[in-house]
Amino acid sequence: MFAVTILGNNSALPAFDRHPTAQVVTMDEHVFLIDCGEGTQSQMSKFKIRRSKINHVFISHLHGDHYFGLIGLITSMGLLGRVHDLHVFAPPQLKSIIDMQLNLADTQLPFALHFHCLSEPGIILKDNKVEVTSFRVYHRIECWGFCFRQVKPFRKINPEKARNYDIPPSFFDRLKWGEDFFRADGSLVKNDWVTEEMPKAKAYAYAADTIYDERILESIHDVDVLYHESTYLSDLEDRAIKRFHSTAAQAARMALKAGVKRLLLGHFSSKYETLEGFESEARLVFPNSDLALEGVSYRI
Amino acid sequence: MFAVTILGNNSALPAFDRHPTAQVVTMDEHVFLIDCGEGTQSQMSKFKIRRSKINHVFISHLHGDHYFGLIGLITSMGLLGRVHDLHVFAPPQLKSIIDMQLNLADTQLPFALHFHCLSEPGIILKDNKVEVTSFRVYHRIECWGFCFRQVKPFRKINPEKARNYDIPPSFFDRLKWGEDFFRADGSLVKNDWVTEEMPKAKAYAYAADTIYDERILESIHDVDVLYHESTYLSDLEDRAIKRFHSTAAQAARMALKAGVKRLLLGHFSSKYETLEGFESEARLVFPNSDLALEGVSYRI
Repeated sequence: MFAVTILGNNSALPAFDRHPTAQVVTMDEHVFLIDCGEGTQSQMSKFKIRRSKINHVFISHLHGDHYFGLIGLITSMGLLGRVHDLHVFAPPQLKSIIDMQLNLADTQLPFALHFHCLSEPGIILKDNKVEVTSFRVYHRIECWGFCFRQVKPFRKINPEKARNYDIPPSFFDRLKWGEDFFRADGSLVKNDWVTEEMPKAKAYAYAADTIYDERILESIHDVDVLYHESTYLSDLEDRAIKRFHSTAAQAARMALKAGVKRLLLGHFSSKYETLEGFESEARLVFPNSDLALEGVSYRI
Repeated sequence: MFAVTILGNNSALPAFDRHPTAQVVTMDEHVFLIDCGEGTQSQMSKFKIRRSKINHVFISHLHGDHYFGLIGLITSMGLLGRVHDLHVFAPPQLKSIIDMQLNLADTQLPFALHFHCLSEPGIILKDNKVEVTSFRVYHRIECWGFCFRQVKPFRKINPEKARNYDIPPSFFDRLKWGEDFFRADGSLVKNDWVTEEMPKAKAYAYAADTIYDERILESIHDVDVLYHESTYLSDLEDRAIKRFHSTAAQAARMALKAGVKRLLLGHFSSKYETLEGFESEARLVFPNSDLALEGVSYRI
């Protein structure tokens, strides 16, 4: 199971019952929160996402519609008696804000809050299931995108063939990662005699907020699902550029050039009451474009 | 028109679709916001209270369920192009938090934000319609209550009688404030010959969050409506004391001793799914007790 659930798809000013940016990426036992606008914890309750499941939070930048809900979420986690660690990846100054707010309230969290400052693009988290990288996007202030990529063995074992070559099950893990096997008599069993190629590891990339900038391409190249902000429609491209945002057509052009499989559009300006225009504009350029709708989970 | 509208009646942890503390006091053209927990701007939208009408915000203390929504409200006011001044009355450290958040987002507000630090009890705002005083309540950290009192002339003119004594209309304003009138021939017209007593100016007092403490009495004495927090029921009085909160029975005892006309109960712990117990417990002590329900306006 690898999916993204949208909690908020609106830009800064809440409107038309749309909420500021927040998304939850689930991958096996991991539940990652990306951005955390005001009211994210209410959206989590509404869509049955348990606060206790979140162990990692990624904050793209310090515009309030992407983080004003974080302190409330952290405080609630504390009130609920959380004991396990929470990791926050964010621009460094967020730490001072959170610390100040906790100190002034004389709040001692019952769990450890680990703050990881974003400073260079690259791998920020890796275990045997997932690799998360940060990359630069181009907004009015420092802003980060995130890419979530499955970590998967390259090869899938054919157990019958492996048995025929007398390979012990204790070696199977190494087979999955492509190793050849030497039998006791010194003879070689080539890996591809007993394994076949695994389906490629999947990836989800999150690019918000950003002006259209092709420097992003190398970081999102080939992902399965790309979320790219589309604050405006093309008739307001000038405004998009001026405010370091993108249009739906630009998001679609990015998806096309990056060779991704599917595009999700979000961060809609509150000047738009309905959203159909975003979908149709993007699909003219990149047919597999969809609106990122609140409460919906999109499979990666 | 003098009323209080409840936007949030829950304590720190949002639950059962109840929200953290926020109230709006309307008095003639004034719309005052008291406290501003996370999501207050959404509650304002829901209950049709326009952000632009709020010119004064009063923050009782720096526990997050009373102010985490303020930065979002201020930011939204800016995005909506507000130009008129906003006044915030709060413990001094709130200014640093708000300033830091605005600076990191590189936000220039299009309106003037005036910060008034609460430091001593007393009058914090006065004009020809209303007088607002701050008073100490007793919580785990520094915490303030607020009293909103109508400013009203003492006397109501009987125009016919005033005319009979040849009092010019230009003197009527002074008559309302109790002055006698001397006619051109030096003869006296006693004020009470031409006026009658006005109904008393009304008052609303807000006391949250606080342990039961009778030092509060002098500040809330005789008000028409008292809001007093009641986080717990009496069976958890020990917990209430330990956490510097009150029970419904204690809130009622305070209302009784202060000689107020009506009590509103709020700041309910999220351990209570239903609230009837609060009302019945309080009414045993002070019959004119009611739950402060979200979305309801209570006339003062």
